[in-house]
Amino acid sequence: MTYCVAMKLKDGLIFASDTRTNGGIDHISTYRKLFYFKNEDREIVIQSAGSLATTQSVIAKINQNIKDNTDNNILKIPTLFEISQIVGTILRETIIESKSELIDTSTLSCSLLLGGYIANNEPELYNIYSEGNFIIANEETPYFQIGENKYGKPIIDRIVNYTTDLENALKCTMISFDSTIMSNLSVGLPIDLVVMNRKENKTTQIRVAKDNEFLLKIRKAWGQLIKENFDKVPPFPLS
Amino acid sequence: MTYCVAMKLKDGLIFASDTRTNGGIDHISTYRKLFYFKNEDREIVIQSAGSLATTQSVIAKINQNIKDNTDNNILKIPTLFEISQIVGTILRETIIESKSELIDTSTLSCSLLLGGYIANNEPELYNIYSEGNFIIANEETPYFQIGENKYGKPIIDRIVNYTTDLENALKCTMISFDSTIMSNLSVGLPIDLVVMNRKENKTTQIRVAKDNEFLLKIRKAWGQLIKENFDKVPPFPLS
Repeated sequence: MTYCVAMKLKDGLIFASDTRTNGGIDHISTYRKLFYFKNEDREIVIQSAGSLATTQSVIAKINQNIKDNTDNNILKIPTLFEISQIVGTILRETIIESKSELIDTSTLSCSLLLGGYIANNEPELYNIYSEGNFIIANEETPYFQIGENKYGKPIIDRIVNYTTDLENALKCTMISFDSTIMSNLSVGLPIDLVVMNRKENKTTQIRVAKDNEFLLKIRKAWGQLIKENFDKVPPFPLS
Repeated sequence: MTYCVAMKLKDGLIFASDTRTNGGIDHISTYRKLFYFKNEDREIVIQSAGSLATTQSVIAKINQNIKDNTDNNILKIPTLFEISQIVGTILRETIIESKSELIDTSTLSCSLLLGGYIANNEPELYNIYSEGNFIIANEETPYFQIGENKYGKPIIDRIVNYTTDLENALKCTMISFDSTIMSNLSVGLPIDLVVMNRKENKTTQIRVAKDNEFLLKIRKAWGQLIKENFDKVPPFPLS
Protein backbone atom coordinates (compact mmCIF):
# COMPACT_ATOMS: atom_id res chain seq x y z
CA MET A 1 0.00 0.00 0.00
CA THR A 2 0.93 3.65 0.15
CA TYR A 3 0.01 6.83 1.90
CA CYS A 4 -0.07 10.16 0.05
CA VAL A 5 -1.41 13.52 1.23
CA ALA A 6 -1.66 16.76 -0.69
CA MET A 7 -2.96 20.07 0.66
CA LYS A 8 -3.87 23.28 -1.10
CA LEU A 9 -3.77 26.06 1.47
CA LYS A 10 -3.87 29.83 1.34
CA ASP A 11 -0.06 30.10 1.33
CA GLY A 12 0.76 27.21 -0.98
CA LEU A 13 0.80 23.49 -1.54
CA ILE A 14 2.15 20.55 0.43
CA PHE A 15 2.71 17.09 -1.05
CA ALA A 16 3.91 14.09 0.95
CA SER A 17 4.18 10.43 -0.07
CA ASP A 18 5.69 7.40 1.58
CA THR A 19 7.88 5.06 -0.46
CA ARG A 20 6.89 1.55 0.55
CA THR A 21 5.32 -0.80 -1.95
CA ASN A 22 4.35 -4.36 -1.46
CA GLY A 23 3.11 -7.21 -3.56
CA GLY A 24 2.29 -9.42 -0.62
CA ILE A 25 4.08 -9.21 2.68
CA ASP A 26 7.18 -11.02 1.37
CA HIS A 27 7.77 -8.62 -1.49
CA ILE A 28 8.37 -5.20 0.00
CA SER A 29 10.35 -2.57 -1.89
CA THR A 30 11.06 1.12 -1.87
CA TYR A 31 9.73 3.11 -4.80
CA ARG A 32 9.15 6.78 -5.27
CA LYS A 33 5.46 7.65 -5.53
CA LEU A 34 5.89 11.41 -5.77
CA PHE A 35 6.93 12.82 -9.14
CA TYR A 36 7.98 16.41 -9.65
CA PHE A 37 7.83 18.26 -12.98
CA LYS A 38 9.09 21.75 -13.60
CA ASN A 39 9.79 24.25 -16.33
CA GLU A 40 10.14 28.04 -16.37
CA ASP A 41 6.43 28.83 -15.80
CA ARG A 42 5.19 25.93 -13.71
CA GLU A 43 5.75 23.28 -11.11
CA ILE A 44 3.61 20.14 -11.00
CA VAL A 45 3.60 17.22 -8.59
CA ILE A 46 1.92 13.89 -9.29
CA GLN A 47 1.47 11.34 -6.50
CA SER A 48 0.25 7.80 -6.97
CA ALA A 49 -1.34 5.03 -4.93
CA GLY A 50 -2.38 1.66 -6.25
CA SER A 51 -0.93 -0.73 -8.79
CA LEU A 52 2.78 -0.02 -9.16
CA ALA A 53 2.75 -1.39 -12.72
CA THR A 54 -0.03 1.04 -13.68
CA THR A 55 1.71 3.98 -11.97
CA GLN A 56 5.04 3.34 -13.63
CA SER A 57 3.41 3.03 -17.02
CA VAL A 58 1.48 6.31 -16.54
CA ILE A 59 4.59 8.20 -15.42
CA ALA A 60 6.63 6.74 -18.28
CA LYS A 61 4.02 7.93 -20.79
CA ILE A 62 3.91 11.41 -19.22
CA ASN A 63 7.70 11.62 -19.46
CA GLN A 64 7.68 10.35 -23.04
CA ASN A 65 5.16 13.05 -23.98
CA ILE A 66 7.45 15.65 -22.46
CA LYS A 67 10.51 14.26 -24.24
CA ASP A 68 8.75 14.07 -27.61
CA ASN A 69 7.03 17.40 -26.95
CA THR A 70 3.68 15.99 -28.09
CA ASP A 71 0.32 17.75 -27.75
CA ASN A 72 0.07 16.02 -24.39
CA ASN A 73 3.25 17.52 -22.95
CA ILE A 74 2.18 18.55 -19.44
CA LEU A 75 4.92 21.21 -19.38
CA LYS A 76 3.25 22.99 -22.31
CA ILE A 77 -0.48 22.58 -21.77
CA PRO A 78 -1.96 25.89 -20.64
CA THR A 79 -4.10 24.87 -17.64
CA LEU A 80 -3.93 22.36 -14.81
CA PHE A 81 -7.50 21.37 -15.59
CA GLU A 82 -6.47 20.24 -19.08
CA ILE A 83 -3.39 18.54 -17.66
CA SER A 84 -5.61 16.58 -15.27
CA GLN A 85 -7.81 15.58 -18.19
CA ILE A 86 -4.79 14.30 -20.11
CA VAL A 87 -3.28 12.47 -17.15
CA GLY A 88 -6.71 11.00 -16.34
CA THR A 89 -7.01 9.76 -19.92
CA ILE A 90 -3.52 8.23 -19.83
CA LEU A 91 -4.42 6.49 -16.56
CA ARG A 92 -7.72 5.14 -17.88
CA GLU A 93 -6.16 3.94 -21.13
CA THR A 94 -3.29 2.26 -19.28
CA ILE A 95 -5.76 0.27 -17.20
CA ILE A 96 -7.88 -0.63 -20.24
CA GLU A 97 -4.75 -1.79 -22.13
CA SER A 98 -3.60 -3.99 -19.24
CA LYS A 99 -6.98 -5.54 -18.54
CA SER A 100 -7.29 -9.14 -19.66
CA GLU A 101 -8.79 -12.40 -18.58
CA LEU A 102 -5.75 -12.80 -16.32
CA ILE A 103 -6.34 -9.69 -14.24
CA ASP A 104 -9.33 -7.59 -13.31
CA THR A 105 -9.67 -3.83 -13.23
CA SER A 106 -9.53 -3.47 -9.45
CA THR A 107 -6.06 -5.06 -9.31
CA LEU A 108 -4.84 -2.57 -11.93
CA SER A 109 -6.44 0.47 -10.38
CA CYS A 110 -4.51 3.49 -9.23
CA SER A 111 -5.40 6.92 -7.82
CA LEU A 112 -3.42 10.06 -8.50
CA LEU A 113 -3.08 13.43 -6.86
CA LEU A 114 -1.99 16.20 -9.19
CA GLY A 115 -1.23 19.72 -8.05
CA GLY A 116 0.87 22.77 -8.68
CA TYR A 117 0.63 26.09 -10.44
CA ILE A 118 1.15 27.61 -13.88
CA ALA A 119 2.58 31.12 -14.11
CA ASN A 120 0.76 33.48 -11.79
CA ASN A 121 -2.46 31.53 -11.71
CA GLU A 122 -3.94 30.28 -8.48
CA PRO A 123 -2.45 26.90 -7.49
CA GLU A 124 -4.72 23.91 -7.98
CA LEU A 125 -4.96 20.39 -6.64
CA TYR A 126 -6.78 17.46 -8.29
CA ASN A 127 -7.68 13.95 -7.18
CA ILE A 128 -7.75 11.74 -10.28
CA TYR A 129 -9.58 8.41 -10.09
CA SER A 130 -8.76 5.16 -11.92
CA GLU A 131 -11.65 5.87 -14.28
CA GLY A 132 -9.86 9.03 -15.44
CA ASN A 133 -12.30 11.56 -14.00
CA PHE A 134 -11.30 13.85 -11.15
CA ILE A 135 -12.29 16.33 -8.46
CA ILE A 136 -10.61 19.58 -7.40
CA ALA A 137 -9.69 20.81 -3.92
CA ASN A 138 -11.29 24.01 -2.69
CA GLU A 139 -11.38 26.07 0.49
CA GLU A 140 -13.88 23.73 2.16
CA THR A 141 -11.99 20.62 1.07
CA PRO A 142 -8.37 21.77 1.10
CA TYR A 143 -6.71 18.36 1.23
CA PHE A 144 -6.81 14.93 -0.41
CA GLN A 145 -5.41 11.63 0.69
CA ILE A 146 -4.91 8.45 -1.35
CA GLY A 147 -3.83 4.96 -0.30
CA GLU A 148 -3.91 4.08 3.40
CA ASN A 149 -5.70 7.28 4.25
CA LYS A 150 -7.74 6.43 7.32
CA TYR A 151 -5.20 6.13 10.14
CA GLY A 152 -3.86 9.62 9.52
CA LYS A 153 -7.15 11.36 8.77
CA PRO A 154 -8.42 12.24 12.28
CA ILE A 155 -5.42 14.45 13.12
CA ILE A 156 -5.68 16.34 9.82
CA ASP A 157 -9.44 16.76 10.28
CA ARG A 158 -8.81 18.26 13.73
CA ILE A 159 -5.98 20.63 12.77
CA VAL A 160 -5.91 21.66 9.11
CA ASN A 161 -8.15 24.06 7.27
CA TYR A 162 -7.55 26.31 4.29
CA THR A 163 -6.05 29.12 6.38
CA THR A 164 -3.59 26.93 8.33
CA ASP A 165 -0.06 28.19 7.71
CA LEU A 166 2.40 25.95 5.89
CA GLU A 167 4.56 25.28 8.93
CA ASN A 168 1.66 23.94 10.98
CA ALA A 169 0.21 22.03 8.05
CA LEU A 170 3.60 20.41 7.48
CA LYS A 171 3.91 19.45 11.14
CA CYS A 172 0.39 17.97 10.99
CA THR A 173 1.35 16.04 7.85
CA MET A 174 4.31 14.52 9.69
CA ILE A 175 2.13 13.50 12.64
CA SER A 176 -0.39 12.02 10.21
CA PHE A 177 2.38 9.94 8.60
CA ASP A 178 3.75 8.91 11.97
CA SER A 179 0.33 7.63 13.11
CA THR A 180 -0.12 5.75 9.83
CA ILE A 181 3.33 4.17 9.93
CA MET A 182 2.80 3.11 13.56
CA SER A 183 -0.45 1.30 12.76
CA ASN A 184 0.19 -0.07 9.27
CA LEU A 185 3.21 -2.02 8.09
CA SER A 186 2.51 -1.32 4.43
CA VAL A 187 3.36 2.38 4.83
CA GLY A 188 7.02 3.16 5.49
CA LEU A 189 9.77 5.73 5.48
CA PRO A 190 11.37 7.57 3.78
CA ILE A 191 8.75 10.21 2.99
CA ASP A 192 9.07 12.33 -0.16
CA LEU A 193 8.05 15.89 0.49
CA VAL A 194 7.46 18.91 -1.74
CA VAL A 195 6.34 22.24 -0.29
CA MET A 196 5.44 25.01 -2.71
CA ASN A 197 5.38 28.21 -0.70
CA ARG A 198 3.50 30.48 -3.11
CA LYS A 199 3.60 33.49 -0.78
CA GLU A 200 7.40 33.49 -0.92
CA ASN A 201 7.56 31.85 -4.37
CA LYS A 202 9.88 29.18 -3.02
CA THR A 203 9.68 25.41 -3.44
CA THR A 204 11.44 22.91 -1.21
CA GLN A 205 11.95 19.22 -1.93
CA ILE A 206 13.09 16.89 0.83
CA ARG A 207 13.35 13.15 1.27
CA VAL A 208 12.61 12.55 4.95
CA ALA A 209 14.62 9.50 6.01
CA LYS A 210 14.00 7.43 9.11
CA ASP A 211 16.84 9.15 10.96
CA ASN A 212 15.58 12.66 10.14
CA GLU A 213 16.08 14.55 13.40
CA PHE A 214 12.97 16.70 13.04
CA LEU A 215 10.73 13.74 12.32
CA LEU A 216 12.21 11.91 15.31
CA LYS A 217 11.59 14.94 17.53
CA ILE A 218 7.99 15.25 16.35
CA ARG A 219 7.41 11.52 16.80
CA LYS A 220 8.79 11.53 20.33
CA ALA A 221 7.02 14.72 21.42
CA TRP A 222 3.68 13.66 19.97
CA GLY A 223 3.85 10.18 21.47
CA GLN A 224 4.60 11.61 24.91
CA LEU A 225 2.00 14.36 24.69
CA ILE A 226 -0.71 11.91 23.64
CA LYS A 227 0.03 9.80 26.72
CA GLU A 228 0.13 12.86 29.02
CA ASN A 229 -3.08 14.20 27.50
CA PHE A 230 -4.79 10.92 27.86
CA ASP A 231 -4.33 11.16 31.62
CA LYS A 232 -5.87 14.64 31.59
CA VAL A 233 -9.08 13.53 29.87
CA PRO A 234 -11.93 12.85 32.30
CA PRO A 235 -12.88 9.18 32.72
CA PHE A 236 -15.99 7.46 31.36
CA PRO A 237 -17.64 6.22 34.58
CA LEU A 238 -19.81 3.12 34.41
CA SER A 239 -22.36 4.09 37.02
CA MET B 1 -20.26 0.51 7.69
CA THR B 2 -19.72 -0.11 11.38
CA TYR B 3 -17.06 0.18 14.01
CA CYS B 4 -16.66 -2.46 16.72
CA VAL B 5 -13.87 -2.88 19.24
CA ALA B 6 -13.38 -5.62 21.79
CA MET B 7 -10.55 -5.86 24.31
CA LYS B 8 -9.49 -8.72 26.54
CA LEU B 9 -7.43 -7.22 29.35
CA LYS B 10 -6.09 -8.49 32.65
CA ASP B 11 -9.12 -7.20 34.58
CA GLY B 12 -11.85 -8.09 32.12
CA LEU B 13 -13.43 -7.49 28.76
CA ILE B 14 -14.69 -4.37 26.97
CA PHE B 15 -17.03 -4.46 23.97
CA ALA B 16 -18.15 -1.37 22.05
CA SER B 17 -20.12 -1.10 18.81
CA ASP B 18 -21.68 1.79 16.99
CA THR B 19 -25.22 1.44 15.65
CA ARG B 20 -25.18 3.02 12.21
CA THR B 21 -25.82 0.92 9.13
CA ASN B 22 -26.05 2.04 5.59
CA GLY B 23 -26.95 0.58 2.26
CA GLY B 24 -25.80 3.54 0.24
CA ILE B 25 -25.70 7.05 1.60
CA ASP B 26 -29.48 7.51 1.24
CA HIS B 27 -30.38 4.49 3.30
CA ILE B 28 -29.02 5.03 6.79
CA SER B 29 -30.56 3.30 9.78
CA THR B 30 -29.83 2.51 13.40
CA TYR B 31 -29.35 -1.16 14.23
CA ARG B 32 -27.82 -2.86 17.20
CA LYS B 33 -24.59 -4.67 16.29
CA LEU B 34 -23.75 -5.84 19.78
CA PHE B 35 -25.63 -8.87 21.10
CA TYR B 36 -25.48 -9.99 24.70
CA PHE B 37 -26.21 -13.53 25.87
CA LYS B 38 -26.29 -14.66 29.47
CA ASN B 39 -27.24 -17.54 31.67
CA GLU B 40 -26.23 -18.59 35.19
CA ASP B 41 -22.66 -19.68 34.33
CA ARG B 42 -21.69 -17.41 31.45
CA GLU B 43 -21.89 -14.09 29.64
CA ILE B 44 -21.19 -13.85 25.90
CA VAL B 45 -21.11 -10.86 23.59
CA ILE B 46 -21.19 -11.12 19.82
CA GLN B 47 -20.47 -8.04 17.68
CA SER B 48 -20.91 -7.84 13.92
CA ALA B 49 -19.66 -5.78 10.99
CA GLY B 50 -20.56 -6.34 7.37
CA SER B 51 -23.74 -7.36 5.60
CA LEU B 52 -26.71 -6.57 7.84
CA ALA B 53 -28.76 -9.32 6.18
CA THR B 54 -26.05 -11.89 7.00
CA THR B 55 -25.70 -10.63 10.58
CA GLN B 56 -29.40 -10.70 11.30
CA SER B 57 -29.69 -14.19 9.89
CA VAL B 58 -26.76 -15.43 12.01
CA ILE B 59 -28.14 -13.89 15.21
CA ALA B 60 -31.64 -15.25 14.48
CA LYS B 61 -30.19 -18.77 14.09
CA ILE B 62 -28.18 -18.45 17.31
CA ASN B 63 -31.34 -17.34 19.15
CA GLN B 64 -33.38 -20.14 17.60
CA ASN B 65 -30.79 -22.69 18.76
CA ILE B 66 -31.08 -21.29 22.28
CA LYS B 67 -34.88 -21.35 22.18
CA ASP B 68 -35.02 -24.92 20.84
CA ASN B 69 -32.15 -25.93 23.12
CA THR B 70 -30.40 -27.74 20.26
CA ASP B 71 -26.87 -29.17 20.38
CA ASN B 72 -25.76 -25.76 19.11
CA ASN B 73 -27.20 -23.78 22.02
CA ILE B 74 -24.38 -21.37 22.88
CA LEU B 75 -25.67 -21.11 26.45
CA LYS B 76 -25.02 -24.84 26.96
CA ILE B 77 -21.85 -25.59 25.01
CA PRO B 78 -18.96 -26.09 27.46
CA THR B 79 -16.20 -23.89 25.93
CA LEU B 80 -15.94 -20.58 24.11
CA PHE B 81 -13.70 -22.27 21.55
CA GLU B 82 -16.52 -24.65 20.59
CA ILE B 83 -19.01 -21.79 20.61
CA SER B 84 -16.79 -19.91 18.18
CA GLN B 85 -16.64 -22.98 15.95
CA ILE B 86 -20.43 -23.21 15.92
CA VAL B 87 -20.97 -19.51 15.32
CA GLY B 88 -18.31 -19.60 12.59
CA THR B 89 -20.09 -22.50 10.93
CA ILE B 90 -23.46 -20.72 11.13
CA LEU B 91 -21.85 -17.63 9.56
CA ARG B 92 -20.19 -19.57 6.74
CA GLU B 93 -23.36 -21.54 5.98
CA THR B 94 -25.48 -18.38 5.98
CA ILE B 95 -23.21 -16.83 3.36
CA ILE B 96 -23.14 -20.02 1.26
CA GLU B 97 -26.97 -20.24 1.39
CA SER B 98 -27.38 -16.61 0.30
CA LYS B 99 -24.82 -16.75 -2.50
CA SER B 100 -26.32 -16.76 -5.98
CA GLU B 101 -25.74 -15.39 -9.42
CA LEU B 102 -27.36 -12.17 -8.16
CA ILE B 103 -24.85 -11.47 -5.40
CA ASP B 104 -21.25 -12.36 -4.74
CA THR B 105 -19.63 -13.52 -1.54
CA SER B 106 -17.92 -10.24 -0.72
CA THR B 107 -21.27 -8.39 -0.58
CA LEU B 108 -22.57 -10.99 1.86
CA SER B 109 -19.50 -11.11 4.05
CA CYS B 110 -19.53 -10.28 7.73
CA SER B 111 -16.97 -10.37 10.55
CA LEU B 112 -17.81 -11.18 14.13
CA LEU B 113 -16.16 -10.61 17.47
CA LEU B 114 -17.16 -13.10 20.15
CA GLY B 115 -16.04 -12.87 23.74
CA GLY B 116 -16.97 -13.57 27.31
CA TYR B 117 -16.41 -16.20 29.96
CA ILE B 118 -17.87 -19.48 31.13
CA ALA B 119 -17.95 -20.22 34.86
CA ASN B 120 -14.59 -19.54 36.43
CA ASN B 121 -12.56 -20.04 33.26
CA GLU B 122 -10.32 -17.34 31.91
CA PRO B 123 -12.28 -14.92 29.66
CA GLU B 124 -11.66 -15.29 25.93
CA LEU B 125 -12.09 -13.15 22.85
CA TYR B 126 -12.36 -14.41 19.26
CA ASN B 127 -12.35 -12.69 15.88
CA ILE B 128 -14.46 -14.82 13.50
CA TYR B 129 -14.04 -14.34 9.76
CA SER B 130 -16.65 -14.69 7.02
CA GLU B 131 -15.10 -18.02 6.11
CA GLY B 132 -16.00 -19.34 9.56
CA ASN B 133 -12.46 -19.70 10.91
CA PHE B 134 -11.19 -17.49 13.71
CA ILE B 135 -8.30 -16.20 15.82
CA ILE B 136 -8.09 -15.62 19.56
CA ALA B 137 -6.84 -12.56 21.46
CA ASN B 138 -3.85 -13.01 23.75
CA GLU B 139 -1.62 -10.82 25.91
CA GLU B 140 0.36 -9.56 22.91
CA THR B 141 -2.79 -8.91 20.86
CA PRO B 142 -5.33 -7.94 23.49
CA TYR B 143 -7.83 -6.21 21.20
CA PHE B 144 -9.66 -6.70 17.91
CA GLN B 145 -11.49 -4.23 15.72
CA ILE B 146 -13.92 -4.93 12.88
CA GLY B 147 -15.56 -2.57 10.39
CA GLU B 148 -14.14 0.92 10.01
CA ASN B 149 -11.15 0.08 12.15
CA LYS B 150 -8.40 2.33 10.84
CA TYR B 151 -9.34 5.84 12.04
CA GLY B 152 -9.48 4.74 15.66
CA LYS B 153 -6.50 2.37 15.66
CA PRO B 154 -3.59 4.78 16.29
CA ILE B 155 -4.90 5.93 19.68
CA ILE B 156 -5.50 2.36 20.87
CA ASP B 157 -2.05 1.31 19.63
CA ARG B 158 -0.50 4.13 21.64
CA ILE B 159 -2.43 3.59 24.89
CA VAL B 160 -3.78 0.09 25.41
CA ASN B 161 -1.92 -3.07 26.33
CA TYR B 162 -2.97 -6.17 28.24
CA THR B 163 -2.28 -4.60 31.64
CA THR B 164 -4.18 -1.34 31.02
CA ASP B 165 -6.91 -0.98 33.63
CA LEU B 166 -10.54 -1.05 32.51
CA GLU B 167 -11.17 2.62 33.26
CA ASN B 168 -8.35 3.79 31.00
CA ALA B 169 -9.15 1.23 28.32
CA LEU B 170 -12.75 2.42 28.31
CA LYS B 171 -11.68 6.06 28.04
CA CYS B 172 -9.40 5.11 25.14
CA THR B 173 -12.26 3.23 23.48
CA MET B 174 -14.40 6.37 23.67
CA ILE B 175 -11.64 8.50 22.13
CA SER B 176 -11.19 5.89 19.40
CA PHE B 177 -14.92 6.05 18.61
CA ASP B 178 -14.88 9.84 18.69
CA SER B 179 -12.01 9.98 16.16
CA THR B 180 -13.79 7.48 13.91
CA ILE B 181 -17.13 9.26 14.07
CA MET B 182 -15.43 12.60 13.31
CA SER B 183 -13.77 11.26 10.16
CA ASN B 184 -16.35 8.79 8.80
CA LEU B 185 -20.04 9.40 8.28
CA SER B 186 -20.84 5.70 8.16
CA VAL B 187 -20.07 5.29 11.87
CA GLY B 188 -22.49 6.98 14.27
CA LEU B 189 -23.87 7.21 17.76
CA PRO B 190 -25.29 5.72 19.92
CA ILE B 191 -22.59 3.29 21.02
CA ASP B 192 -23.52 0.00 22.68
CA LEU B 193 -21.13 -0.84 25.46
CA VAL B 194 -20.59 -3.91 27.60
CA VAL B 195 -17.86 -4.00 30.25
CA MET B 196 -17.24 -7.30 32.03
CA ASN B 197 -15.17 -6.48 35.08
CA ARG B 198 -13.92 -9.97 35.99
CA LYS B 199 -11.91 -8.77 38.98
CA GLU B 200 -15.08 -7.51 40.64
CA ASN B 201 -17.34 -10.03 38.85
CA LYS B 202 -19.57 -7.20 37.66
CA THR B 203 -20.92 -6.54 34.18
CA THR B 204 -22.22 -3.20 32.99
CA GLN B 205 -24.27 -2.56 29.86
CA ILE B 206 -24.79 0.97 28.61
CA ARG B 207 -26.11 2.56 25.46
CA VAL B 208 -24.05 5.74 25.03
CA ALA B 209 -26.30 8.30 23.35
CA LYS B 210 -25.11 11.42 21.59
CA ASP B 211 -25.99 13.56 24.60
CA ASN B 212 -24.10 11.35 27.09
CA GLU B 213 -22.38 13.86 29.37
CA PHE B 214 -19.21 11.78 29.85
CA LEU B 215 -18.77 11.21 26.12
CA LEU B 216 -19.28 14.95 25.52
CA LYS B 217 -16.70 15.79 28.19
CA ILE B 218 -14.17 13.36 26.73
CA ARG B 219 -14.81 14.65 23.21
CA LYS B 220 -14.35 18.27 24.25
CA ALA B 221 -11.28 17.65 26.43
CA TRP B 222 -9.57 15.48 23.83
CA GLY B 223 -10.26 17.90 20.99
CA GLN B 224 -8.84 20.80 22.99
CA LEU B 225 -5.82 18.87 24.26
CA ILE B 226 -4.94 17.69 20.75
CA LYS B 227 -4.91 21.30 19.57
CA GLU B 228 -2.88 22.46 22.58
CA ASN B 229 -0.47 19.56 22.15
CA PHE B 230 -0.07 20.28 18.53
CA ASP B 231 1.30 23.71 19.39
CA LYS B 232 3.82 22.12 21.77
CA VAL B 233 5.27 19.79 19.15
CA PRO B 234 8.45 21.14 17.55
CA PRO B 235 8.10 22.27 13.91
CA PHE B 236 9.42 20.48 10.84
CA PRO B 237 11.74 23.12 9.37
CA LEU B 238 12.33 23.12 5.65
CA SER B 239 15.94 24.23 5.63
